[in-house]
Amino acid sequence: MSDKLKGQTISFQNPPLIVNSASIVGPEEGQGPLGDKFDLICDDVKCGKNTWEKGEKKMVSDIIKLTLDRASVSSSDLDFIIGGDLLNQIVTSNYVARDLGIPFLGVYGACSTIIEALSIGAILMDGGYADAVLSFTSSHYQTAERQFRTPLEYGDQYTSCNQQTVTGAGAYLLGWLGGQVRITHSTIGKVIDLGATSPTNMGGAMAPAAADTIIQHFLDLGRGPQDYDLILTGDLGRVGRNILNSLLEENNIVTGEKLQDCGALIFGDNKKFGAGGSGCAASATVLSSTFIPQIISGKINRLLIVGTGALFSPLTVQQKESIPCIAHGIVIEGV
Amino acid sequence: MSDKLKGQTISFQNPPLIVNSASIVGPEEGQGPLGDKFDLICDDVKCGKNTWEKGEKKMVSDIIKLTLDRASVSSSDLDFIIGGDLLNQIVTSNYVARDLGIPFLGVYGACSTIIEALSIGAILMDGGYADAVLSFTSSHYQTAERQFRTPLEYGDQYTSCNQQTVTGAGAYLLGWLGGQVRITHSTIGKVIDLGATSPTNMGGAMAPAAADTIIQHFLDLGRGPQDYDLILTGDLGRVGRNILNSLLEENNIVTGEKLQDCGALIFGDNKKFGAGGSGCAASATVLSSTFIPQIISGKINRLLIVGTGALFSPLTVQQKESIPCIAHGIVIEGV
Repeated sequence: MSDKLKGQTISFQNPPLIVNSASIVGPEEGQGPLGDKFDLICDDVKCGKNTWEKGEKKMVSDIIKLTLDRASVSSSDLDFIIGGDLLNQIVTSNYVARDLGIPFLGVYGACSTIIEALSIGAILMDGGYADAVLSFTSSHYQTAERQFRTPLEYGDQYTSCNQQTVTGAGAYLLGWLGGQVRITHSTIGKVIDLGATSPTNMGGAMAPAAADTIIQHFLDLGRGPQDYDLILTGDLGRVGRNILNSLLEENNIVTGEKLQDCGALIFGDNKKFGAGGSGCAASATVLSSTFIPQIISGKINRLLIVGTGALFSPLTVQQKESIPCIAHGIVIEGV
Repeated sequence: MSDKLKGQTISFQNPPLIVNSASIVGPEEGQGPLGDKFDLICDDVKCGKNTWEKGEKKMVSDIIKLTLDRASVSSSDLDFIIGGDLLNQIVTSNYVARDLGIPFLGVYGACSTIIEALSIGAILMDGGYADAVLSFTSSHYQTAERQFRTPLEYGDQYTSCNQQTVTGAGAYLLGWLGGQVRITHSTIGKVIDLGATSPTNMGGAMAPAAADTIIQHFLDLGRGPQDYDLILTGDLGRVGRNILNSLLEENNIVTGEKLQDCGALIFGDNKKFGAGGSGCAASATVLSSTFIPQIISGKINRLLIVGTGALFSPLTVQQKESIPCIAHGIVIEGV
């Protein structure tokens, strides 16, 4: 058995640094409680383009450029770029990769995508296959609603467990020099499906996958909540986070205030957004904007972030299938 | 700079074995010239299920089971499974992963997916992160047509550069013991887009991406066609293969009979299938059924297979975007 893998968890022997990262969000996210923490806020959700999809792509391009510029890294210095998004055929990521012209690995883990992309990036770095990797993702309320549920123009009413897809993007540059935080472990999740079928309660569907990955992570490393300053999930929202909390307590894992969820944080308690935010950008923007700075400032030292993805497809929902979910985790520490 | 990566090409220092692989196809592929080489042939494209999509999933489940059974490996012995497919949200792969219950990395490279999945699998093995990985993919004519073009019931007429999506699936088990072929190199491709816009000529759109990856591969390793017994592309079809041949010749790379294409081979010269087959299953089934046995028998010793993917999305075609393409390559040799 490999000494780098225990159970589902990889321990990096040469943990790569997150040299730089940056986040961009739409106007509603910018008006939320984390508004002053994001690097860029778009005035309109089309970012000056003529379609929502082109606006989403522009957000990703802009935030990658900022991430690289701040680190004085040129895109041609990158060995690999790794990304994915919610749109069919991960088309935002494909077009961004076209413009960058760097070897590209497209990944899909629904809203867990950034953690999958960071895990593969960290493997490429730790394994000696790369010296510079960029991982990125995006999501967008308008593009996601019309693809996954109903176009906004239909005016569907929401339920209290609804979540609003976060409009935004995040980019993370992995390297060996200049960063103040590093990725030390990755736990790759299994697909978990307890039979949830409602496309309006993703948080409830995803909570069991998050619980499975967190429990497995603790088991693999012989750790528990006491070893972390923060356990951060991606986009369970308030409803899903409470379910996760119950599932962990059933397994005698008491997290208390250490358990936070990016989707529950990004819009605060504003009822307009139901149970909170969702989407790939929830974890990608909140980690970069809010929690990596807390590691750098020394407020927290070590966090486990668990990206949560509902592998939901409109087609299979129509065919009466339940919604399989997945959660991948990485550990980020101060240097 | 990493000594494992040169340009875009990784050289594996502990090349993993393909311990076993297997292929399943639909009835039309089974009646083609390679019909007697596939492991399983379905009598009907629904595989006894009530939808095409469930039929596609059954094909994948069946071929993974056969691949593992033949190697006397249980699914619980696998460290990771890596897969993707053409359906939105790679939903076939997600449901297969749900049933297997093994840590899962979802990937998307359109029809290059199996080469991306084998590349990441080989990285996990070579890097010491895993001792057993299963990579898989699928595609299906009926499920793909209604998603990407028009439902078959509309009766659209085809052009001569049309290709038919291969109905089938392939699975590859990577390990350290028992195999007779190994993966020695991986070249990760860039997204290339020369402005092609027709969703009925994917081969022509993808040929420049294939050329870029092949030229880069030779450059990175100081190799040329003389170092390979076969250079196999995924699903360019006859039209795309001829374009690729011209592009390579413009770069003074003369491949002659060594250049073959899985999509051009699978249906033979039957004009019913236009320029040949396409889809993730084209390369995944033809490599396993036809060419790995030729390496094992000693007829050929070393091949470069380049999976080709059109990162085509109906939405962006409607929005007048051109079609970005990608090609990833791996080298497979006899032990």
